Parts: sequence; structure tokens; C-alpha cells
Amino acid sequence: MLVQQEVPNWLLQRAFLTPNRVALKMGEREITFSSLHTQVLQMAGRLSTLGIQKGTKVGLLSHNSIEMIEVIHAIKYLGGVTVLLNTRLTANEIAWQLQDANTEFLVTDSTFSTSLHIVINIPVFSFDTLYDIQPDENVRIQEEFNLMDIDTIMYTSGTTGKPKGVIQTYGNHYWSSIGSALNLGIHQDDCWLACVPFFHVSGLSILMKSVIYGMKVIVQEQFDHIKVNRAIMEENVTMISVVSTMLTQMVDHLERFHFRYPASLRCVLLGGGPAPKVLLEKGKEYNIPVFQTYGMTETASQIVTLAPEDSLNKLGSAGKPLFHSQIKIIENGEEQPAMKAGEIVVKGPTVTYGYLNQPEATQSSIKEGWLHTGDIGYVDDEGFLFVLDRRKDLIISGGENIYPAEIEGVLLSHPKITEAGVVGILDEKWGQVPVAFVVGVELTSQEVEAYCKAQLAKYKVPKQIYFVSSLPRNATNKLQRHKLQELVKIDKG
Amino acid sequence: MLVQQEVPNWLLQRAFLTPNRVALKMGEREITFSSLHTQVLQMAGRLSTLGIQKGTKVGLLSHNSIEMIEVIHAIKYLGGVTVLLNTRLTANEIAWQLQDANTEFLVTDSTFSTSLHIVINIPVFSFDTLYDIQPDENVRIQEEFNLMDIDTIMYTSGTTGKPKGVIQTYGNHYWSSIGSALNLGIHQDDCWLACVPFFHVSGLSILMKSVIYGMKVIVQEQFDHIKVNRAIMEENVTMISVVSTMLTQMVDHLERFHFRYPASLRCVLLGGGPAPKVLLEKGKEYNIPVFQTYGMTETASQIVTLAPEDSLNKLGSAGKPLFHSQIKIIENGEEQPAMKAGEIVVKGPTVTYGYLNQPEATQSSIKEGWLHTGDIGYVDDEGFLFVLDRRKDLIISGGENIYPAEIEGVLLSHPKITEAGVVGILDEKWGQVPVAFVVGVELTSQEVEAYCKAQLAKYKVPKQIYFVSSLPRNATNKLQRHKLQELVKIDKG
Repeated sequence: MLVQQEVPNWLLQRAFLTPNRVALKMGEREITFSSLHTQVLQMAGRLSTLGIQKGTKVGLLSHNSIEMIEVIHAIKYLGGVTVLLNTRLTANEIAWQLQDANTEFLVTDSTFSTSLHIVINIPVFSFDTLYDIQPDENVRIQEEFNLMDIDTIMYTSGTTGKPKGVIQTYGNHYWSSIGSALNLGIHQDDCWLACVPFFHVSGLSILMKSVIYGMKVIVQEQFDHIKVNRAIMEENVTMISVVSTMLTQMVDHLERFHFRYPASLRCVLLGGGPAPKVLLEKGKEYNIPVFQTYGMTETASQIVTLAPEDSLNKLGSAGKPLFHSQIKIIENGEEQPAMKAGEIVVKGPTVTYGYLNQPEATQSSIKEGWLHTGDIGYVDDEGFLFVLDRRKDLIISGGENIYPAEIEGVLLSHPKITEAGVVGILDEKWGQVPVAFVVGVELTSQEVEAYCKAQLAKYKVPKQIYFVSSLPRNATNKLQRHKLQELVKIDKG
Repeated sequence: MLVQQEVPNWLLQRAFLTPNRVALKMGEREITFSSLHTQVLQMAGRLSTLGIQKGTKVGLLSHNSIEMIEVIHAIKYLGGVTVLLNTRLTANEIAWQLQDANTEFLVTDSTFSTSLHIVINIPVFSFDTLYDIQPDENVRIQEEFNLMDIDTIMYTSGTTGKPKGVIQTYGNHYWSSIGSALNLGIHQDDCWLACVPFFHVSGLSILMKSVIYGMKVIVQEQFDHIKVNRAIMEENVTMISVVSTMLTQMVDHLERFHFRYPASLRCVLLGGGPAPKVLLEKGKEYNIPVFQTYGMTETASQIVTLAPEDSLNKLGSAGKPLFHSQIKIIENGEEQPAMKAGEIVVKGPTVTYGYLNQPEATQSSIKEGWLHTGDIGYVDDEGFLFVLDRRKDLIISGGENIYPAEIEGVLLSHPKITEAGVVGILDEKWGQVPVAFVVGVELTSQEVEAYCKAQLAKYKVPKQIYFVSSLPRNATNKLQRHKLQELVKIDKG
């Protein structure tokens, strides 16, 4: 008996099965699955000329674009591994991730290529330079994908400082698409609006669904609530993925102009942390089909999502697991009964095999197939998950995850800073923003900020620097971040 | 790394995820997934009391009913293997299949239990007697299904005489459901009308889809074109599986009463051999969304199906493979180019691992994952399959497969018959019916017919017996069935 672990190359099969369906639309440009395949085959030839082959790790740093999608598929055609990089990172952060992942090439869109060359010691190609390369005519493409092979790597910050590379297999992405289909359904006229970045799994998973389902995707370079609302009103968008800050802007805009979304919009998939109740209620008031969802890079996007029939009557819940997945609530090693809070642990075929080059972090996170998320929540007596708190100390700012430890590490690397503590504070626009407490001499806020800006993506730079004489610590000298929160409140008061 | 080969127990997970959706409707009786699970759990307890456990083979002989569905799921809950028996078989044919499969128990509906006891030497339980059994309170159910485990066995006739038991795994059924979903989509209001028998894979696959998709199924005991049309008109049926003879009766009825199907009927899945062109054209005229499909017991139902956008413009084609599957046309060991006919060979995760206890038949049919179907067809230059002829000499009568070799075997077992040859002839109602040519002395048609009736399901009994002095054979003494066809024409002429 054979284990079924190979499926046809998704885009290749899709282009064969439904060649004339529109795969992508960006601005006025539309491209069918058949044309996309032709373009990707050319691109695969070019990448092959460069020496990219099975197993080669290729960094990809780009805003959403059709060229970016071509490169994503082309790397799959060759069996390479795509390391997806957050465009908001600094050159140093990018260099670190590229090196950690043993990346051999970096492909970027035209906005990046020049500044990066300085700190990066691997070949960098912009899309433009790629198009000048003569495609390898003898390129051999993967006609089948092995579901156990590594497809992509995405970095996620952790409580221990430096980001960790999450390994995502073809199987992780595949089962994610299927699990979502079994929950949300597949309609022939479905059209998913992609306004979240493809370097995040929330965006990338839309592209996987597109080729697996044969579904049209409208691509937007980045989130702009006016453009998003226009697409929903005018382009028969049926599905969209957003985070709370995005949905808030969209709904405010709706409200201001007294319009309503058309009934063809059948799913607004809302991820990125617990949603404000007021937003969910406004969604209900405006008849917006909001589906709260819970997922992370380590689960190849959603693993828990509300079902259509529960989207309005289970406000505040992230739903039940997707068909192939399971959740448990654990406290002190014991599974908790309904209504008791604890750590959310999840299992299923979308869960990562682990972190790149980090056997210890992998072992401490994934035990017997169960991923210990570090997030806190409970399930009600019908099995619906309510997420109370994302990972301990995690700051979620406009859908981006920020770990205090990473910022503290940067602060402590400054010669004049002896102690540092970072916490998130509520922010009307971004949900949360980081602020820092530092112990140091002969320093100004401006200096600290400039120092951070040079090393951290802008969204990670503390919005406020508090100088203190010491930081609150417990008996074992561990930083007590909740006490810092209180200091902020005093300051605001 | 682990291979993903376990998925949650389908019904158990479905009852947890969407407990209140209607799972089944038969007559006025409706049952939700939650209630179905409760019933199945009870039934699993009863079967456990009988000693049924992981790996136990259980024969199931029943017309379509909710009780039958409960038993099908209950056997899965215990990890047993269901041997599905055609209700039209004779007691001797059933006894042979039960023995060949090493079946330990037989479960039947009330119409069978008495007559069968005589020839069957294993315990037989009717549903009624099962309900009297005290459920095992300590029953342990399979919370996860291993996709590689054997789930069901269905017998299919072959060119070599006795029927062969086709092994169907959980994975075969699972991937079949997913593959179909990726082609036909999943809508929240989907409702599949099951008027084909569950002992055939065309029927059973509907039940698998029901629990995997969370979809309502309307169960009818057997096909009755009036009841089918009434359900389509009045019960929001969106999908139905039929064979040509059934669709012909449905359309005739439509025509007679000048009505049309509602637009909510989105897919009429038409299997069971090449469809008459006139029927497809009539379907088009009546705006019936007919999707021709190609599949067999060995592929766990459809493996090639038209896509929605092609259902009207590729009349006569069975379509393209489902997402995970592939087809090739082979002639003399060589893959054929477009438009060249040859044997249809198929590959994919729905293809059986082989025939029970028949390593030779398995090896000669399945080579490197490719199933050699014996059916003849070609693909056009866009990759659409056109089936020209089902397996060599196969007779398809009202959707049932009949192999001449099996009937010839019975005829030759008669002491007064020395040679026998069987072919199919066209029949207005059934598509085809079998007729026999025999060489024998002191015999009447009535005697031969009665002899066949005692040993063969009614649909396999030759509709006409021709007595001849010899049968046409080639140089190596092989029966030339095509010459028998000519003899029939002469007789009719």
C-alpha cells in the first residue's frame, strides 16, 4: 500500500482543468489560469538559468503584485523553497532572516533592490532584472507536489528574542485550503479580495486557494479601505480576509457614506487576534458576514473558524476547528473542561513540522502533534473557542505580531541602556502599539528612537520611551511586564 | 516528519462542527448530524456486543434506508470493514461473495433475513433484531480514521468469471469527496438526492460527501422517476446522481407534463457508461445541468467529470480528471496523442489498492499506480475524455455492470450445455440486456432460463437463448463475441 502524499502541481493542473477562468485581477489587468501557467513556466525557466532547483532557498521581498505571484509559483515549479520576507523589515532584519534560512538568492520588487545590496551577501534580483534572463529551455518542472516537502518559510517572532523560521509544507497549505473549503464552501463565482500581504500566511493562503479551487483573486498592492470598499461594491467580491484595524476603517467608511455591501459578499474572514466586540456588533448591524477566525503562521492560516450558521449568533467566538483539526485547552498539563480558560493547543495537518534549525523551540512547542500556541482561551459547552489573549506579552499592531523580547534585545544592545522593558498599549488606530521603559544615562528619546529605527521595522519601534530608574522585577529577577502596563496607565492618567 | 494519514472520524467531527444541520431526510423523517451520531453510537454499541471490532468484515444487504446508513457509519466507528452486497443478487451469489470476503456477520433489512439463512453459514441479523441487542457500554470508537485503512469492499464482475472484491480505503472515499468538491463546489444549501443504491459506489459516495461536507441527503429507497421528479420540484434538491436509463425516464416525465426543473438544481451527475447523444441534447433543450462523468467501483466513483463551464459545450465528453487524478490513453503500451483511441488508464488517490485475495488480477490491472480500466476512449486536443466503449464485452443494463464471462460460467455449469457465449444487445428501456448462445442437446429456453434464474441476479439472466450448433471462434479457439452480435442482427432482421 502506498501513502497518498503526492498531488498534481496545483497551478499546472488548474491550468489544464479550467484554463479560461480568470485567476488574478490587479487594476485593469486580468490573467487566466492558462496565461498564468505560461508566465510561470517562463519564470521557472529564468530561475532555473540562475541555478535555482529542488531545495534551493529563495528569499522573496515584495509588495503584492502579479509578478510576485508568478515567482511564488515558479519556485514551486522548480521545487525550491520560498522564504517570504516582511516588506516592513529593515535591511538588517532581512539580512538576518536570509542568513538564518540559508537563502541562496533574493528576489525583490523594484522598490528594494538598491538599498539592500549593501548588507546582503547573496545575489539579489529585482523582477525587472529577472525578465531579462534567458529562460532555461530544458527546465524540468515538478509535475507533482509531495505534500511532505517544504514549500515556504515565514518568520515569526517569539518570546525568546530573534524571529523563528516556520516551516510550511505543501501539505500544510493544501489541507488549509481544503479545510477552509469544507467550512466556507466553494462557489463557482467566488472571488477573493487579497488586500493582506502575501508574505503573511493570511495573504499567501488566498493564492493557494486560488489555484486549488480555481478561484479568481483580486490583488491589491496593500490595504486601502477606499479601494477595498470600491472593489467590494463594484467587482463582485465574495470573500475577503482582514484584521480588525482594517475592518474598522472599512466600516467607518461605509457608515460615513451610508452604503451597504452587496449580498454577494458572503464572507469577511476576520483574523489577527480577538476582535473588539463593538466592531463585531457594528458588523452585525450592517449585515456584514463577519467570520471570526483563529490561526497563525504555524497553522498555515486559519485553524478555527465560525461556520456560516454561527457567524451571527456566536459573536466573539473564533468558532470550531476546521474539519481536519482539533483543539484542546490545557492548564498545568491537564485538559480543561468547557468554560475553563487555559492554553490553546491545536492539532491537524496544517500544523508546522517545526521551526527551522531550532529543534529545542520545536520540541517545546509541538508535543505529540499538538502545537502549544501560548495563547489563552476557553471553549464553551458547545465547543466554540473564545480567545482571551494572544501569546503572553504579544503585541498585535495593525495585524502585525510584535514580541517585546525582540525590541528589548535591540534596546539592550545600545551601549548606554542597561535595562529595557516593552509592553503594548491600546491604540485607537492600530489596536496596540509598543512602548518602552529603559534604564540608561545621558540619553534622549530621540536617540533611542533613531537607534531602534535603524534596526527594527517601523511598526516595532516604540511609540513612547519612558526613562525609569529601575524596572519592576520579581524575586527571581524576572521582568514584570504587567507592572509596566500599570505605569503607563499612571502616566496617561 | 509525519505523513498525514489520519483525519477525524467524519460523522463524529461533523456532528461536533454542525450538529443542527439536517443530515438525512427520508419520507417525512428528518435527522440532524447530531441525532445521526447518537443513533450511530448506539448502533456501534450493539455491533460491539456482537463482537464486531477493528478489522471485522460485516456483510450489508439492504435497500436504501436510514437504518442502513446507521449501520454503515457504525461499522466505521468500530473500524470494521463493510462488504456491500447488491440486493439483486441470488442467495448463492451472496453466499459466494460473503465467503470470498471472509465475512463474519451479515446485516440485512427485513426483506432478506428469512430466505438467506439456508445458504449462509454466518450469523445473519436484520435491523430489527439488531435494535433488540443491548449496546456495549464500554464500546471504544475510532476517533480518527486512518486514510490507508480498508473501509468498504464492493464486488465487481470481471472478464475472468467470478466477481472480484474491490478494496476501498477511507482515503479512496475521502479524496473522492474532496476531488468532487473541487470540481462541483460546495454550497451551504446543497442537498443531494440519493436514488441510486448505497451498495453501489455511486450511492455510497453521496453518504461520504454528506458527512464530509455537512450536506443534507434525501434518501429514496429505490429509483422511481415520479418520486425523483417530485423531490426535485418540491424539496430544493441541488444535486442528484443518475444513470442514463433513469435520466431518460425523468426527462420523458418532464416532457409529458410540460414542466421544468427549478434553477436550484445545479448538478445532475450522469454516470454508468457513455450516454446517448439524444438524451444529452434533450437535457440541454430542457436546461438540465447534466454533468457527464466517468468512474467505476475501482476509483471510488467519479474520477473524470465535466466542469460547470463545460457541461453544455462539451456534449458527449465525460470531462477532465478530478483535481488529484490523471488519465492517459494507452495503445500497445504507448501513450496516445490527442484524438487517438486506446485503453483509458487512470491514476490518483481514489484508485483502489487492488482486488481482495487476487494478487494476479491486481497486478495485471494496476501498474505503477495506474489502473488499466479496459475501457476504450480518447482525449480531445483540450484534454477532454470521450469514452467510446466500456470494458471489453461489458454489458451495462440500467446502470448495472454485467460481464458475459460470469453468465457463461453459469451456463457452462449446466450438465447439458457444452458451449456458451453471451453478448449485450441494445434495449430501449435498459440500454442493454444480455442474450446467450448455447450449444447443447435436449434443452429448452425455459429450462436454461430457470437454471440461470436460480443462480444469477435477475438483471443478469439472458433475455433470449439462441441454440446453435457451434460458436464462432478464432484460430486460438477464443470466442469471437463480435460475431455473436452479428448473429443477433441477422435474427432481428
